Amino acid sequence: MGGDFAPRNVVAGAVEALRSSRNNFRVVFVGSEDRIRGELARHDVDGLPYDIVHAPEVVGMDDIPTVAIKQKKRSSIAVGVLLHKERKVDSFVSAGNTGAVMSAATLILGRLEGVGRPTIGAFLPSEKGVCLLLDAGTNVDCKPHHLLEFAIMGTIYQSYMYQHPNPTVGLLSIGEESTKGNDLTLHAHRLLSKSKLNFVGNVEGRDILKGKANVVVCDGFVGNVVLKFAESVLSLLRARVREYAAKDFFRKLWVGMMYGTLKKVLKDFDYQEYGGVPLLGVNGVSIIGHGGSTPRAIKNMILKAEEIVRKDINRHIQQALVAHG
Amino acid sequence: MGGDFAPRNVVAGAVEALRSSRNNFRVVFVGSEDRIRGELARHDVDGLPYDIVHAPEVVGMDDIPTVAIKQKKRSSIAVGVLLHKERKVDSFVSAGNTGAVMSAATLILGRLEGVGRPTIGAFLPSEKGVCLLLDAGTNVDCKPHHLLEFAIMGTIYQSYMYQHPNPTVGLLSIGEESTKGNDLTLHAHRLLSKSKLNFVGNVEGRDILKGKANVVVCDGFVGNVVLKFAESVLSLLRARVREYAAKDFFRKLWVGMMYGTLKKVLKDFDYQEYGGVPLLGVNGVSIIGHGGSTPRAIKNMILKAEEIVRKDINRHIQQALVAHG
Repeated sequence: MGGDFAPRNVVAGAVEALRSSRNNFRVVFVGSEDRIRGELARHDVDGLPYDIVHAPEVVGMDDIPTVAIKQKKRSSIAVGVLLHKERKVDSFVSAGNTGAVMSAATLILGRLEGVGRPTIGAFLPSEKGVCLLLDAGTNVDCKPHHLLEFAIMGTIYQSYMYQHPNPTVGLLSIGEESTKGNDLTLHAHRLLSKSKLNFVGNVEGRDILKGKANVVVCDGFVGNVVLKFAESVLSLLRARVREYAAKDFFRKLWVGMMYGTLKKVLKDFDYQEYGGVPLLGVNGVSIIGHGGSTPRAIKNMILKAEEIVRKDINRHIQQALVAHG
Repeated sequence: MGGDFAPRNVVAGAVEALRSSRNNFRVVFVGSEDRIRGELARHDVDGLPYDIVHAPEVVGMDDIPTVAIKQKKRSSIAVGVLLHKERKVDSFVSAGNTGAVMSAATLILGRLEGVGRPTIGAFLPSEKGVCLLLDAGTNVDCKPHHLLEFAIMGTIYQSYMYQHPNPTVGLLSIGEESTKGNDLTLHAHRLLSKSKLNFVGNVEGRDILKGKANVVVCDGFVGNVVLKFAESVLSLLRARVREYAAKDFFRKLWVGMMYGTLKKVLKDFDYQEYGGVPLLGVNGVSIIGHGGSTPRAIKNMILKAEEIVRKDINRHIQQALVAHG
């Protein structure tokens, strides 16, 4: 029931995911059974492996997360996370209220042993492959050792999910020198330098898209600002293309001809490609999608969750935390 | 002598500035007289109003700002700022070591009365005109009242330089609600709400390019990360266009045909358009350019400095600070 276009886009995306894969997983829809069935009727779902678990309540985008989770025990988020807690499902994905999914996952699933702060990682494009930015908004105030934890979890995620043998880790700051930055980065630099991670030192705002590090760590305030800024780049470029085309008919025709090329070139800034952001450090698998998720974004999110489960990322994170501890 | 291509680009840009304007200002070149004359010989400067003041030393990009300013008293930065202090010139612009220009301006020129922290503002494109982001890297740790000062200075700059009658001010945070953010933003929100500024509340990373506020305030750590991130967007897009074109000959031809259009559409992310970033709050006029400044960027920087002087921005800032104080 989560997101601006639920349950329509959620059901459509799940159906696409089931069709595109070799059906080695089931989708369990959690929400208003009537509305889910209504949406399923729009698709040919014959033979697709799915179930429906009814949940009559909905956490809205404006609900206060911690309050909503306590009061709406029969909401799709609470019911879904509980199903995962009881291991009736192997993961929980949602395009709903980010804070509510985060709270439910942290409270109901609990943290992995050795994790002080679960974190949300965001994906950003770069000249050298996808960059994982942690924290992307969960932990506004961080201690240096939290950034080390994020770096360890990010390293494992990049190794197993993107086949980087030894991912590079950068510390987001405002100068390359270890003496540049604020209190948090100065201390975190020392911790990261002493770790066994492939730490490449400070990286600046410009180094993210350049691909200077596979994993970039920062506090959730900075990470959230960068993530949302990046997500808005495509929208400004689209506005500029529209303005350009609006001037006369030939320009419109010309832009129409370029459309496919522009789309490919600008694709990197389309957050739908990444499907959603993984919640790392909780005792379970959870991905949180954008409120405006399209069916394609939902599909990508579901396939990503299946991959995280299949590759047993949490076990690897646990082992890495012990090894670094 | 500042920047990666000095004095060549600096001289070329200054000559362009002098030619494009109605010659209502003189340019005083500060640096190695021989090298400046050598560069001037490449241009037809007959009748253009300029002078040369010899300065034999250069502050390098790797010099430690505060140390360099104290030890290299005959550097182009120190000599230039001193000329401005003595009011032999009305402004000082440089594409050199940002920290050194900043230190020299703050130490030699001093602060405007009522200013606790001089600040560097950065320009970012938006769907509704240029957004001024303050602080862009000078003040890593800020108190709430510093953000209020930045907001006042930014408001004046936008009013007079971009003809906004009543510029909107946003506080960069991680949620629209006043309860979202970190310690700094929560307190700054209260101060800004009580001010006479046209405060629109918290803005998120995505709201900058959307143009939700004409002036966006934040601490220098966050601002610097956002500015450098924005500056790198064009480079990633260029890399993607190159990759696309490299696939086959027809694509190359196609991209060649689109080149002019792409350039126009992506222009917004070209920092050269903005020329440089103004240093606000010092008792003088100073603009700091990008190290890689092209002649066009230098030209824009000089014309902007002339405009700041002509419009007497500092007097207006002073008055606004008193009115808000």
